[in-house]
Amino acid sequence: MDYQPRADEVLALLRHATGVDEALAALPVFGDADPALMQQVLEEAGKFVGERIAPLTRVGDETGAQFAGGHVTMPPGFREAYQAFWQGGWPALSASPEHGGQGLPAVLECVLYEWLSAANHGWTMAPGLLHGAYECLKHHAGADLQARYLEKIATGEWLATMCLTEPHAGSDLGLVRTRAVPQLDGTYRLSGTKIFISGGEHDLSDNIVHLVLARLPDAPPGPKGLSLFVTAKVLPDGTRSKVHRERIEEKMGLHGSPTCVMRFDEATAWIVGEPGRGLAAMFVMMNSARLHVALQGIGLLDAAWQKADAYARERRQMRAPGAARSGEAADLIILHPAVRRILDTQRAWVDGARVLAYRTGIELDLAKHHPDADRRAAAERWCGFITPVLKAACTDQAFHGASECLQVFGGHGYVREWGIEQVVRDSRVAMIYEGTNEIQAIDLLSRKVLPDGGAAFCAFLADLKPAHAALAERLTALGRVAQAVATGAQASPDLPYGIAGDFLRATALALLAWGWERIGAASELAGERWTAPARALDAWILPEFEMRLCIIEGEIARAGTPAQASVT
Amino acid sequence: MDYQPRADEVLALLRHATGVDEALAALPVFGDADPALMQQVLEEAGKFVGERIAPLTRVGDETGAQFAGGHVTMPPGFREAYQAFWQGGWPALSASPEHGGQGLPAVLECVLYEWLSAANHGWTMAPGLLHGAYECLKHHAGADLQARYLEKIATGEWLATMCLTEPHAGSDLGLVRTRAVPQLDGTYRLSGTKIFISGGEHDLSDNIVHLVLARLPDAPPGPKGLSLFVTAKVLPDGTRSKVHRERIEEKMGLHGSPTCVMRFDEATAWIVGEPGRGLAAMFVMMNSARLHVALQGIGLLDAAWQKADAYARERRQMRAPGAARSGEAADLIILHPAVRRILDTQRAWVDGARVLAYRTGIELDLAKHHPDADRRAAAERWCGFITPVLKAACTDQAFHGASECLQVFGGHGYVREWGIEQVVRDSRVAMIYEGTNEIQAIDLLSRKVLPDGGAAFCAFLADLKPAHAALAERLTALGRVAQAVATGAQASPDLPYGIAGDFLRATALALLAWGWERIGAASELAGERWTAPARALDAWILPEFEMRLCIIEGEIARAGTPAQASVT
Repeated sequence: MDYQPRADEVLALLRHATGVDEALAALPVFGDADPALMQQVLEEAGKFVGERIAPLTRVGDETGAQFAGGHVTMPPGFREAYQAFWQGGWPALSASPEHGGQGLPAVLECVLYEWLSAANHGWTMAPGLLHGAYECLKHHAGADLQARYLEKIATGEWLATMCLTEPHAGSDLGLVRTRAVPQLDGTYRLSGTKIFISGGEHDLSDNIVHLVLARLPDAPPGPKGLSLFVTAKVLPDGTRSKVHRERIEEKMGLHGSPTCVMRFDEATAWIVGEPGRGLAAMFVMMNSARLHVALQGIGLLDAAWQKADAYARERRQMRAPGAARSGEAADLIILHPAVRRILDTQRAWVDGARVLAYRTGIELDLAKHHPDADRRAAAERWCGFITPVLKAACTDQAFHGASECLQVFGGHGYVREWGIEQVVRDSRVAMIYEGTNEIQAIDLLSRKVLPDGGAAFCAFLADLKPAHAALAERLTALGRVAQAVATGAQASPDLPYGIAGDFLRATALALLAWGWERIGAASELAGERWTAPARALDAWILPEFEMRLCIIEGEIARAGTPAQASVT
Repeated sequence: MDYQPRADEVLALLRHATGVDEALAALPVFGDADPALMQQVLEEAGKFVGERIAPLTRVGDETGAQFAGGHVTMPPGFREAYQAFWQGGWPALSASPEHGGQGLPAVLECVLYEWLSAANHGWTMAPGLLHGAYECLKHHAGADLQARYLEKIATGEWLATMCLTEPHAGSDLGLVRTRAVPQLDGTYRLSGTKIFISGGEHDLSDNIVHLVLARLPDAPPGPKGLSLFVTAKVLPDGTRSKVHRERIEEKMGLHGSPTCVMRFDEATAWIVGEPGRGLAAMFVMMNSARLHVALQGIGLLDAAWQKADAYARERRQMRAPGAARSGEAADLIILHPAVRRILDTQRAWVDGARVLAYRTGIELDLAKHHPDADRRAAAERWCGFITPVLKAACTDQAFHGASECLQVFGGHGYVREWGIEQVVRDSRVAMIYEGTNEIQAIDLLSRKVLPDGGAAFCAFLADLKPAHAALAERLTALGRVAQAVATGAQASPDLPYGIAGDFLRATALALLAWGWERIGAASELAGERWTAPARALDAWILPEFEMRLCIIEGEIARAGTPAQASVT
């Protein structure tokens, strides 16, 4: 079965558990975005995603993007769907009207991309980079470059790539070697090889704009020597640029998205922003990009859940304990407690994470547009702490939860027919790209929590104002552990690196419980649909919180005797 | 890199942590199997696996088994490797000399199949079913059938299948519909469709023997109406039987093993054992078959570890905290704590699970051959409790641990080149076949632990005689929880079904700690090679034990108010 967006459920969650109405009311820039408009946009988006994008997911996997002679042919139907997508105005949902955008709140774009990823992760990789490229050029490019590229990218008429990784430089972009040599006419010549370039070549749009990290001849080594450049498949004079596609990768999944090896052979390019400020320019949209990857995770998990839930309501095997006797030789497997547990657990992750992710989408707009500087600062703080947590936890759960959902199918889950194994394969990559989940954990703990001894993090936790004692205790314990790690790290600087993953995970679990407090407080979100996942959260998910704290405290206790790392 | 069996490490583990020498000394039937012979067999096996089988794993995945016109062509090199395998005497390692076997201890066969699975899971599926078919026919077939098939299967000259599953009958074999109609000449005609038949058709051997579960015309419904039959691709008179291969499945992985849909169209067959005793005949080797799947899990996890460990020793990214400054621009990633943790954690699983699995292989022989009836009964008890735990825990860890190892590669892990994503895809199926891991959990808790209120399980735990207080406390807690579940299940019969997975997992963790106590007690197993995984076990793996108990205790507390299951 194809993924079916549920606009009604998402709208209910958005309006009754995330405080979207009050938040947007404080932002005059979104004066038109009232509940009726949100409903209309989401219903139309759900229709488009369900009817045009979801049916192409299997052909995307089986046929995949095909590479021959430097050209990539996308799977049948992909180009037509993309043309309909950009002509329907979908890429530009939150871009400024002055650049051809719709000027809608970021949170609506969040929901759209969650659904697109759920429906067809491979196809969605292509437009998924537009928003970041748009913001990057909008904030850092000069007027000429903006005039040339901004509207094309805002509307999605042209697609875009981010060319960061090189064979020897993945998480460590400071090792990037691609060189940019200035020319007398103010342009640059780029030379080097970039890998893992999603959508580096395809036939979806008539041009492809490349944002490229490279090093000027006199640049210092390391990340501070990196500058950002823009080039394109087709140059302004109509000629093809010297950007060569060497091959596309054979991957575990995501076959609908061509992952290209690109060779820049003195390719003409223009600098974006200041020399040596390339990473900063590229990372201007880091929170937004990482939030979108978290939403991919939420979408993929919901897609896996939809498949498993439907299968469990038609497949019969054995008698379920406690089930009423039926005339059938066996009971529906949804009546078996182990199956029920899998389904309710994933539901708890999807819905709780949605509250957090949508709220973060709202905070992104508050950080930009709220009239009060303190409120903007609070929104920045929210996004800074929550984004790495959501990126890691949601993508981790997408893969592991999809694997749980596969298990509901038994042997049928392992074969292609039901599409569930594709979700497992596709989702795996999201734990790696846009900063591996280990990088997210270090970002949270080492860069954001520890520098002030955990003070800002504790203040952030206090602001969550939990309604229930159990969550209040967990938040207090989390803050206490953050401070203990900060203290321990003074004597053992490597302590945080070993337990950053546990700390992120404990934070994710506490936040998930907070999301479910919001759901529980909404009288509109009542009934078994919402109480069953809430029970799953308490019974089966949250006990991991104490385990993570136990691991962290054990490591703090052991940290008194640091040894120099060595290869043994 | 291809998998490299480490005969030296396995032999050291076997001899110094499993008590194999003393156990075999008590079994006169294995008089020749002294340490020198074990060493010779393992070294030769390691050589054969590393040189002949491991290099074929990638072609097995990429080319895969090809189906056309009812025939299956195996990937290049598969047939030649199989011919060398059976002609070298490897399939028959533990079969009786009277049937052409080597008569060696089962534990050596365990090690061989662990390595084969690590080296090439797909290829190994074909001979992997021989042992079960051999034991099944040896114990249940009449003299004529034995004369016709036993030596061919013991030596592996002919391969064998197990035809159990039907489209509507997976975990619930009681729903099997294939019919067997008796003929005047004493044969039967089989009609029906079987699915998920590993090796149902291929070109590895000149004949394929099929063991088929089917129902006689007058048989009662349910599992007690099932009888076991044998037929083959080529009948004794040289004609082809009416067993048709309809197609092979497109799977997530394991492409080197053809998974066939088989249609029996009044195919001539012979009954094996008594009418209505088909399941019992097929399950005679259940402990052995499940142990072998656990060993697949151990092998696949070791294969993933080998790849990640090698990559982490050549890839450099960023500065590792606490690492000595080197002349390189970045440190080896094995120096990063998060990478180290992944590697040491998987090592802890592989080596601890090896102790348990090898010991279980030894107990299988003790159960068969020990002169003392009490010792045989204790061995049976060991196998009954431990086998489902190992099957579920080792296959679960193979998939999840391989995914962790993939993460070590970053983006490179998601592409085919390094082979790690193949391990993730291949390993996933082992959580499903030979009884899903959920079935294993219910087998352990509902069928083995609870019937006597947990008494035998507690006695089994007490016999483990832990050396350290921490493990002693965990074993006591586990026994206490088993008894509490037994009590709670009286009022709430569905209680065990919701927490069987947690109970199995807690048992697995306690047993893993017991395995590591054996390693820790062996002075021959010293140094960082063994102490680093031991630290990983304590710091990062065992805290899950308390979490599982917390979940179980929560469910016991909630179980006072059972509700009838319903579809909502």
